[in-house]
Amino acid sequence: MTGTAKDSPRRWRVAVDVMGGDGAPSVPVAAGLDAARRWPVDILWVGPQEQVAAELRRQGAGWPPPGRIVHASQVIEAGDAPVAALRRKQDSSIAVGIRLVREGEADAFVSAGSTGAVMAAGKLMLGTLPGVARPALAAVLPTLDGRGFLMLDLGASAEADPEQLVQYAVMGAIYAREVLERPAPRVALLNIGSEAGKGNRLYRETYERLARSGLDFAGNVEARGLFDGTVDVVVCDGFTGNVALKAMEGAGEACWKLLKAEVARRPLARLAALLLRPVLLGVRRRLDYGEYGAAFFLGLDGLVFKCHGSSDARAIANGIGVAVKACQGRLLHRIGESIGKEDGEALGRGR
Amino acid sequence: MTGTAKDSPRRWRVAVDVMGGDGAPSVPVAAGLDAARRWPVDILWVGPQEQVAAELRRQGAGWPPPGRIVHASQVIEAGDAPVAALRRKQDSSIAVGIRLVREGEADAFVSAGSTGAVMAAGKLMLGTLPGVARPALAAVLPTLDGRGFLMLDLGASAEADPEQLVQYAVMGAIYAREVLERPAPRVALLNIGSEAGKGNRLYRETYERLARSGLDFAGNVEARGLFDGTVDVVVCDGFTGNVALKAMEGAGEACWKLLKAEVARRPLARLAALLLRPVLLGVRRRLDYGEYGAAFFLGLDGLVFKCHGSSDARAIANGIGVAVKACQGRLLHRIGESIGKEDGEALGRGR
Repeated sequence: MTGTAKDSPRRWRVAVDVMGGDGAPSVPVAAGLDAARRWPVDILWVGPQEQVAAELRRQGAGWPPPGRIVHASQVIEAGDAPVAALRRKQDSSIAVGIRLVREGEADAFVSAGSTGAVMAAGKLMLGTLPGVARPALAAVLPTLDGRGFLMLDLGASAEADPEQLVQYAVMGAIYAREVLERPAPRVALLNIGSEAGKGNRLYRETYERLARSGLDFAGNVEARGLFDGTVDVVVCDGFTGNVALKAMEGAGEACWKLLKAEVARRPLARLAALLLRPVLLGVRRRLDYGEYGAAFFLGLDGLVFKCHGSSDARAIANGIGVAVKACQGRLLHRIGESIGKEDGEALGRGR
Repeated sequence: MTGTAKDSPRRWRVAVDVMGGDGAPSVPVAAGLDAARRWPVDILWVGPQEQVAAELRRQGAGWPPPGRIVHASQVIEAGDAPVAALRRKQDSSIAVGIRLVREGEADAFVSAGSTGAVMAAGKLMLGTLPGVARPALAAVLPTLDGRGFLMLDLGASAEADPEQLVQYAVMGAIYAREVLERPAPRVALLNIGSEAGKGNRLYRETYERLARSGLDFAGNVEARGLFDGTVDVVVCDGFTGNVALKAMEGAGEACWKLLKAEVARRPLARLAALLLRPVLLGVRRRLDYGEYGAAFFLGLDGLVFKCHGSSDARAIANGIGVAVKACQGRLLHRIGESIGKEDGEALGRGR
């Protein structure tokens, strides 16, 4: 991506949650400064005025700093119950950031704070786009070939019906086209077997509907095949998606922990592991979906991006970059004009 | 386990599918011979008479061989559609093996053949124990501390209701007690968050019922925490369980593939990897649930064990060992007397 926007030369205004994530406030500030150098973006720094200003100064941002500080006196902690915290802390950086989006003062909001609180704020304060039943949490997950694929819903809604899953597919296809630059996205349904007719009622009905839709539907994909990267978008209900995501994370972590424990027990292995360290870290990084930028909520009436709590500045800056790209691709507009039209007019098939 | 059974000194009769799995017939034969040396078991060798006899001779089993050959003229291949293949091949090793169990000629059946065909044969030919709504596919999955935990349903039934999930919990607890030697098994519900009230309707209702049951209920567990080994039994519906299992397998495989690819690209890393090889293989083996013996169907009116298609002789022998243990623990009898009594009389709490 260069400094020149795709659709227009305008600059985008991205609100950044300075108080979100394990590394706050220094990591989000470093990320925002980095993003402002790389993309046509003005950062709205959301957090306690004094603290944000001090951090910007500390990082040599100059005075006045690039963008604008938007004061938010409160912070929602990772341990807070999301909805209750949101009600109690109406001046939290998350609530203020989402409010900026709602009031049109920011084009997008990026946070590494509590997923639950960001999701609750998005649902309560922005609502969904006209025609969208429920928002979905989406993320680009890694594949062996490095291309990655978009998976949704990863847990925004615990319940789903076929109508919702088809909407997820439509929104995912648009995201893949506009943001991931896949001109003709292939969409698959997560399932417990690859043949048609597999799965429970929800998945069998969704399969039928996707097969009749204007989407380029690749059929069912099993969770074991996700890393092979044969499709661009994988659709599932939020319960199943969240379990699958956490199962993959858990298995990956278990690999590393066992490897570490085994290596520590043997001197020769310790030496070898030292030599292999860059390889191991590289593999780990390639499998870490946080590296791909951020998770985001599709279907909300506003752009909201959620980075991993443990994100470093590079990961959050990537999240801001993805937000810019979503702005440039007019993601909300595209979803708005396509939802409910599963016959494919606006879905990019043969575009 | 020693040659002396726990409940009685009797010998158990286990039917082994000589034609099942990638290594058939040599691997199942080697496994059966090994098992017969280690446990009080008479093997019923199920497969084409001549071929089985030749393989037994080839492996120096002596003549007559230990146990008995039961002729089955057909083989269900991995690619066959399970139910159709079962109907078409009524003299297949899987159908004959299950029939031996149904007719009381074998105490258990062990196969590394097609999961779908073994499942279909079990459901159609054995049916469920009185009071059991649906059978569940269960397996002992690895944890970091090496203890492992029982997870079910891994895909026997794509649909489930709270009643079924509670039955899975009861059956799982009995298995953990009688076969895994966990005198007071702790049972958890797979979910998308650890707090009560998380998940979809099915999981919220099941949570309530498990909390009221006589089981030692540890609440919800997330898929990321499965490897930590804090509980003995994890319950979920078959759709979710199958997705979680395959997601874990896929993530594990992706780790190894990436590692291999990265190592191959760098000479120094190649040397280091050579030194690390035993460690890497050890880790891989510890994460391979096939090593723990076999998957099995709980709730069927008969003992049916399914080893991984790629099992080696050790893995299938372990599967036979688990079958013997299930016989010794009178698993079917224990499930039969407990099902429908979730108030916990027979569930081992405080036993």
